[in-house]
Amino acid sequence: MTTTQSSLSTVPDPIDVRSLRAVMDGRWQAVREDVRARMGERRMHPDPEWSMAEHRAKVGEHMRKLAESGRASLGFVERYGGRDDIGGSVTSIEMLGYGDLSLMVKAGVQWGLFGGAVQALGTERHYDRYLREIMDYRLPGCFAMTETGHGSNVQALETTATYDPDSGEFVVHTPTPSARKDYIGNAARDGRVAVVFAQLVTPGGRHGVHALVVPIRDADGRPCPGVEISDCGVKAGLNGVDNGRLSFDRVRVPREALLNRYGDVDADGSYHSPIENESRRFFTMLGTLVRGRVSVAGAASSAAHVALTIAVRYGLTRRQFAAPGAEEETVVLDYLAHQRRLLPRLATSYALHFAQQRLVEMLHEVQSGGTGDETAQRELETRAAGLKAVSTWHATGTIQACREACGGAGYLAENRIVQLKADTDVFTTFEGDNTVLLQLVAKALLTNYRDHVGDLDTLGMIRFVVENIADTVAERTSARALAQRLRDPDLEDPEWHRSLLEDREEHLLAGLARRLRRAGEADADPFAVFNAAQDHLLTAAKAHVDRFVLDAFDRTVDACADPGVAGLLGRVRALHVLALVEADRAWYLEHGRLTATQSKQVLGMVNQLCAQLRPHARTLVDGFGIPEAWLDAPIARD
Amino acid sequence: MTTTQSSLSTVPDPIDVRSLRAVMDGRWQAVREDVRARMGERRMHPDPEWSMAEHRAKVGEHMRKLAESGRASLGFVERYGGRDDIGGSVTSIEMLGYGDLSLMVKAGVQWGLFGGAVQALGTERHYDRYLREIMDYRLPGCFAMTETGHGSNVQALETTATYDPDSGEFVVHTPTPSARKDYIGNAARDGRVAVVFAQLVTPGGRHGVHALVVPIRDADGRPCPGVEISDCGVKAGLNGVDNGRLSFDRVRVPREALLNRYGDVDADGSYHSPIENESRRFFTMLGTLVRGRVSVAGAASSAAHVALTIAVRYGLTRRQFAAPGAEEETVVLDYLAHQRRLLPRLATSYALHFAQQRLVEMLHEVQSGGTGDETAQRELETRAAGLKAVSTWHATGTIQACREACGGAGYLAENRIVQLKADTDVFTTFEGDNTVLLQLVAKALLTNYRDHVGDLDTLGMIRFVVENIADTVAERTSARALAQRLRDPDLEDPEWHRSLLEDREEHLLAGLARRLRRAGEADADPFAVFNAAQDHLLTAAKAHVDRFVLDAFDRTVDACADPGVAGLLGRVRALHVLALVEADRAWYLEHGRLTATQSKQVLGMVNQLCAQLRPHARTLVDGFGIPEAWLDAPIARD
Repeated sequence: MTTTQSSLSTVPDPIDVRSLRAVMDGRWQAVREDVRARMGERRMHPDPEWSMAEHRAKVGEHMRKLAESGRASLGFVERYGGRDDIGGSVTSIEMLGYGDLSLMVKAGVQWGLFGGAVQALGTERHYDRYLREIMDYRLPGCFAMTETGHGSNVQALETTATYDPDSGEFVVHTPTPSARKDYIGNAARDGRVAVVFAQLVTPGGRHGVHALVVPIRDADGRPCPGVEISDCGVKAGLNGVDNGRLSFDRVRVPREALLNRYGDVDADGSYHSPIENESRRFFTMLGTLVRGRVSVAGAASSAAHVALTIAVRYGLTRRQFAAPGAEEETVVLDYLAHQRRLLPRLATSYALHFAQQRLVEMLHEVQSGGTGDETAQRELETRAAGLKAVSTWHATGTIQACREACGGAGYLAENRIVQLKADTDVFTTFEGDNTVLLQLVAKALLTNYRDHVGDLDTLGMIRFVVENIADTVAERTSARALAQRLRDPDLEDPEWHRSLLEDREEHLLAGLARRLRRAGEADADPFAVFNAAQDHLLTAAKAHVDRFVLDAFDRTVDACADPGVAGLLGRVRALHVLALVEADRAWYLEHGRLTATQSKQVLGMVNQLCAQLRPHARTLVDGFGIPEAWLDAPIARD
Repeated sequence: MTTTQSSLSTVPDPIDVRSLRAVMDGRWQAVREDVRARMGERRMHPDPEWSMAEHRAKVGEHMRKLAESGRASLGFVERYGGRDDIGGSVTSIEMLGYGDLSLMVKAGVQWGLFGGAVQALGTERHYDRYLREIMDYRLPGCFAMTETGHGSNVQALETTATYDPDSGEFVVHTPTPSARKDYIGNAARDGRVAVVFAQLVTPGGRHGVHALVVPIRDADGRPCPGVEISDCGVKAGLNGVDNGRLSFDRVRVPREALLNRYGDVDADGSYHSPIENESRRFFTMLGTLVRGRVSVAGAASSAAHVALTIAVRYGLTRRQFAAPGAEEETVVLDYLAHQRRLLPRLATSYALHFAQQRLVEMLHEVQSGGTGDETAQRELETRAAGLKAVSTWHATGTIQACREACGGAGYLAENRIVQLKADTDVFTTFEGDNTVLLQLVAKALLTNYRDHVGDLDTLGMIRFVVENIADTVAERTSARALAQRLRDPDLEDPEWHRSLLEDREEHLLAGLARRLRRAGEADADPFAVFNAAQDHLLTAAKAHVDRFVLDAFDRTVDACADPGVAGLLGRVRALHVLALVEADRAWYLEHGRLTATQSKQVLGMVNQLCAQLRPHARTLVDGFGIPEAWLDAPIARD
């Protein structure tokens, strides 16, 4: 086939796919290989003809098998039968994203959210009682945080847990319809207990949101007295997960039901906590639950890998329209328009995968090493929030592009893409709405990680910016930016690519700080100032994530010993970065970072890089290492 | 609520919603009101718990009701019981897009594609035999064009229809697996006959693709001898439509089965046609079938209207996070980020709706007035192709944005958005893949409508461009562009908005012509030149559609007698155009059409326009006039 001639360096050929896959598998390669060996021989994804009930039943079976495999115990403490391997547990969940996303979510609910909350917020008495039954799935449980009226603003939850010193019990209650727990995984069918987040009330007053273990079903599966359970019904996807709604009518649980690591109530009703400030306490509690966000980012990326693998394989066999004089029709991946649909997204999938690996390492280090380093914890929370937002949006867009690239065949359930699309759609919403998460990222950056991610107190943030940060940020930036502007760049230079992303992040952040300072002026309406800057805030957060992702990419390439693989990854990095710059080149033009000529050259270079990577497209999707049985789509067959 | 103060003119208040709705209903208001009156009282959209079989059965019932209503006959000729109202028939299909899109597609297959093909390609003998039974749904039929190996390049279909002079019959045959008819609506369950597109072969040779009426099922629903029928199975959506696959093993049909308006075979096997050139003949035949593309564009827009109505209503009741000092939490549509998700898309939905109305008028005029004016026919084809691509991509993006804007509630089937999303996903593919359609648009522009849309003969196009058009296009542009660049614009001026879109279209087209001329150079590889310019080609086509859409908007506003409505629409127009310019402002910067300062001002103006239209959001979605029963989503209740 004819491809555009390129002036850029070419990639060594052939590439050692095993070597590439080792880079992609990373530190938890053994966990990945274990999943492939134990589950990779049979089809995992749901039959599209299944009813919701059938899919739920099948996921239930798989859950029991997972429990038997021992991988469910990876993330739990060793002295209760766990394996103290937090990174491994998240990697295991990420691998399930290649199979059935309903199973991934159900496993995430049981062992990540529910089990993770018991472990992170509870103490020995809860470990003794629950951890083994959680790991082996004898005790299916729920993570009951979200309420119908309170999705993003969970600090304003309305459910109450009121301590009654006379009986030594908490009374868990749903005071209004908007306080109903909603979208709760494991609630509609399987859950026997729920970790319920509620406003803690003692005779001494209110103490903010805390979590309690509340039984919701008896051994026969009937709702416990006072607990009303309903089913959320059919969803776009993830119909193997039994999402439901829970309401509590003055349900009594013993005092010991309180997960009391960060706040406890004595028998006499007196409240005490190691963290004085109520808001800080709540966000410290939330911060320990970051694993869920990390898992969702990873599984979203896995789903995008499956879709890209199917679309690239089909794009390499599907032919349409003959070139002038040609006998055979042209392979569709030889069309520039088709390459542009798939290859920049493939490059970005690589970049996000390396960032995910880095994030999992950070998670593992922070959570294995105790809670000592507050800055590391907050950086972790910030990066988890940011990468979750960027990876899930990337998955949504990529799976959509793959569907369209596969035409009518892509629309048939048998070819898998539509299920991936339907399943992952909510990933941009759950575990934190992406828009809200990016605001939290921006806030963390503006306040230099002063607070835990999660607290979107606008006024407090603005005050802090006004008082502390703006000048520093602004000064740090200007010198670099100026130097950047004066450079005459080599458009192939990886360092120039890096400086484009770094400079944008710093400039956006400095400008944001300047804008928000106006909120401190005497006649300003802080909400109006904040709201008018909201798009700026989101852009700045996204720019930060882009830079973090590039850092992780460079770490990976630096550590790569195989020159062929490193060379290929260098081209992938260039396509990833230049596609980002291309998409946001208006910003670079507006701020004098690119001339009009350079900006047009960026477009041309993206085209050239697509042509360069086209011969390696199959190698790149093979690098994901998805078991063949999990790719069982007629259009993906070789 | 606090909104950013605006320097732009404000909209008169209150707006007369009935007056707005009359503008939106347009010329075929009576058809819209008839649909509302007859069907608007009951829920139309599918129950998410239905199996595929149940949904198909329900759509079958609705089809029979539609046939009884008489609206199915709108698009057919009067002397066979039709009503000769082509615009009305398309409007009627568009209205079904507010209800159940499976029904819309099934109706489109039966009365648009299948019935339309019989009427457009057949002659009196076919009308006599089929039209009444088609209209009253006694004869469910298929439009069997697409083959497994031939989606976009339908001129290369492999199915053959070989005339046998001895028996006076055609032998319809599927010679290879890739020649199997695929994704055919009405095939898996209901179809009794199919209009089969096949290469016509006579003893004298091959004559290109023609269509024949081929029985596929007998009266008892069993496949006819030699016809193999299979089911495409579950799809992402549209599961009320029975898509299937058809293969023919030397199936014999009488000579009269050939739809013989554009080519006929005498009993002795001699072929004759009013159109000598085989390719031109085929695309003339395809051109008569443009109604399907127009219908899909309209129905996609309808689905986007439903999603926007639900998301805007929810955005006006849902509250999250309190502003500093506020008692109540903030209504989410008061956040700039939420406005930016929904309001520019709402504005563009208005623009596309007016363009759709204009397109339907053109269709009605061309098809009611006979086939006299070739240029009008080709303009119609070009605009149908372009608007179909832009409207269906807009629908995909808008429904996705609405899903995310509704958070977890948007993911529940009960709130309708996910079904709209799943149903419309394939609209970007069927009735012409959007990427291919935009290439056809570019080709029509480059060759000044020399040929029918549909013929993507790269070499022929390039030759024609080289020989004829490039200079003219280039000259026409340069003078205007220069004048434009030198202007110091008023950023609120509608004329400036118009010139931004016009200038971009002309410049892109001229540049494209210059690039493609290189293909005429002695040592050039025409495919490589074409392929390298493919992204440029798509951008130019999109720019043309944007300008056509603006023309239609201005026609509508000019004809609007109500000053309040006209004022509101003026703001909607500004938001639509400036959001387009904002999205493509890199181009304007690269080509000196906007300074960096102006470009940043465009961003600010989009924010301001969002704030201005925020109080009118409910009015604007009420303007769509969707029956309340069809909006039956818990989150959309008042």
